[in-house]
Amino acid sequence: MKVIILKENLNNGLIIVSRVAGKNLTLPILNNILLTTEKNFLGLSSTDLELGIKYWSLGKIEREGSLTVPAKALTSFVNLLPEKKINLEVKNQVLSIDCENNQTKIKGLDAQDYPIIPKIEGENYIELNILPFCEGISQVVDFTAPNQTRPELSGIYLNFQRDRVQLTATDSFRLAEKTLYFEEKTNKEQSFILPQKTARELINIFSEKRGKLKLYFSPNQVLFEYPMPETPHPQIQIISRLIEGDYPDYQGIIPKKYEVQVVLSKNELLNQIKTASIFSGKGNEVRIKVNPKKEEVEILSQNPELGENRSVLPGKISDSSDKTKETETIFNYRFLVDGLSNIKSSKVVFELNGEEGPAVLRPEGDTNYLYVVMPIKTT
Amino acid sequence: MKVIILKENLNNGLIIVSRVAGKNLTLPILNNILLTTEKNFLGLSSTDLELGIKYWSLGKIEREGSLTVPAKALTSFVNLLPEKKINLEVKNQVLSIDCENNQTKIKGLDAQDYPIIPKIEGENYIELNILPFCEGISQVVDFTAPNQTRPELSGIYLNFQRDRVQLTATDSFRLAEKTLYFEEKTNKEQSFILPQKTARELINIFSEKRGKLKLYFSPNQVLFEYPMPETPHPQIQIISRLIEGDYPDYQGIIPKKYEVQVVLSKNELLNQIKTASIFSGKGNEVRIKVNPKKEEVEILSQNPELGENRSVLPGKISDSSDKTKETETIFNYRFLVDGLSNIKSSKVVFELNGEEGPAVLRPEGDTNYLYVVMPIKTT
Repeated sequence: MKVIILKENLNNGLIIVSRVAGKNLTLPILNNILLTTEKNFLGLSSTDLELGIKYWSLGKIEREGSLTVPAKALTSFVNLLPEKKINLEVKNQVLSIDCENNQTKIKGLDAQDYPIIPKIEGENYIELNILPFCEGISQVVDFTAPNQTRPELSGIYLNFQRDRVQLTATDSFRLAEKTLYFEEKTNKEQSFILPQKTARELINIFSEKRGKLKLYFSPNQVLFEYPMPETPHPQIQIISRLIEGDYPDYQGIIPKKYEVQVVLSKNELLNQIKTASIFSGKGNEVRIKVNPKKEEVEILSQNPELGENRSVLPGKISDSSDKTKETETIFNYRFLVDGLSNIKSSKVVFELNGEEGPAVLRPEGDTNYLYVVMPIKTT
Repeated sequence: MKVIILKENLNNGLIIVSRVAGKNLTLPILNNILLTTEKNFLGLSSTDLELGIKYWSLGKIEREGSLTVPAKALTSFVNLLPEKKINLEVKNQVLSIDCENNQTKIKGLDAQDYPIIPKIEGENYIELNILPFCEGISQVVDFTAPNQTRPELSGIYLNFQRDRVQLTATDSFRLAEKTLYFEEKTNKEQSFILPQKTARELINIFSEKRGKLKLYFSPNQVLFEYPMPETPHPQIQIISRLIEGDYPDYQGIIPKKYEVQVVLSKNELLNQIKTASIFSGKGNEVRIKVNPKKEEVEILSQNPELGENRSVLPGKISDSSDKTKETETIFNYRFLVDGLSNIKSSKVVFELNGEEGPAVLRPEGDTNYLYVVMPIKTT
């Protein structure tokens, strides 16, 4: 292999593919990046066997070939090189890198021994606008279940219908659902559970990019493809296994009615809950009292060792089943902070259902995002 | 105690004094901040018994008194309050804090039980310009010895002479010395060893401030005092114990001559040493070869498992005892990176003394800072 490539082109690719390499102790070759030549591209690939990334960097291919090279050393080394042309050459499984006044040799491992990253063939794809898709993923990605007792809850559920996709995550204490509508209807009705790790990498890799992603389906895997700007050739492919199992029918958890609905300033509510949290006990408990008559929301917390906090916010009661009844609900303040942090509007709608019923937070005037949170039971 | 105070005034003080509170398990009252009223000031104090901080916040004192209150809760709570007036009131060792629509009670501990922070009386002080003093401290503070086998090396040595102060730190592998000249000569010739922790707090607290610090001496302690802007009243006092013992006579370690002196671009040298470090072995070894005939410096590193790196930098040989002799010295790359990172000029002077002699790094055209580094011995 012999390749001439601009530092920038190589560096941009390495930063992305090195994200999944370099964390495997049992199979050392997975700490490496696979370099391959393809027409006028240098291909960079990595995989942790659940998630694979491939990046195509434009370069001048003088001799074809391939090798795998330690990801961490190669990436941090190339990152420090000046913004010049780099000469890469492979001889006897050693990669020589020459750039200006800097000469380096890195020992590699045979490309034959690198696991094959599966491909998805065919034309069964959906086009997704990157910006809303990454924003939507980021609004639900934190709320998957952390442990493995119910694997199907450890990922994000993507439910594609003709005109929309719903992104859902829940850890059974809270649930977030984002709906994205398509500009054009599709005839693809599919659903799958995407591992949280893949979802986080999608945000990390694509959230600064613009344009469209192609999403290819297969029964056990999905492929996200980002094209090289102004060409049909892919620049980045991310292939991920899916989580097996059926996602629970969560629609029953989303309350269809409420005892009281109050509209508050999002920042004021978030700030007062953070303030109250300083005085919450070990259970992270804060009490939310809604007084429809006074049109105010009271936030209380108490810690017998430290002290107590009480604040009052004006809250417009937009609807209530009983205009005189004061309601009081106890929440884990972290769950409220998490939900509010994912609401982008200046006003938030807070719907409460008594001491034990699930509450809903959502942006005012926007039905495409909702966050359901269970109260802490007092009994 | 009853005080009305602007949030900003209280918050600015709490951020500073809370730095040393809140880390003591054996004496819980040290996790608290001491609040006292003094004329038209609210005094905030904290100590860890080695380092004490006092801050005076301007406020309206309606009733005198004092209390100690948990530092972490008070500081994070006040920080979240709106930029308004705060009413503080102490009753039965509980501090009530009212601010707009927020009411809070924090349980305190008796001010009588708080350890007395010693004072230094008298007029025996030196005035220091904050900006160069903090910059100078920051150029040596990282190089004190980490362990307690030689306590006198665990601090920074400040040696005040009539026209200057020398700031020195060494861990016996490397030594940094900064000299600051005074605008006016003093008649104070004093020296002491300041704990590294105090030095770091001086940088943290004062490096964004301007003007002058007063430094008061006593045999076992020093006091740094920062005045309230446009008044003679102190705003911040930092009192620190000193490290006992005699600082070693380090002047003998600083080489008075060199085999070869080379001038290099600081950023290029730093960058190439970082690049070489990727391929250095477990001993962090990089080799520096100076070739006076070719006027170049070669940087080499090698790791039998990973590979090797070689780079060449143009280096102006400003002086050499033998214009034909190539010298080669092995260094711990971290020590070179640390020294170069504290040199602010664009060119660096590198003076080498063969395989085993100490080398010196210093800014070109500036004799007020020098960094001595011992090579790694090959035998």
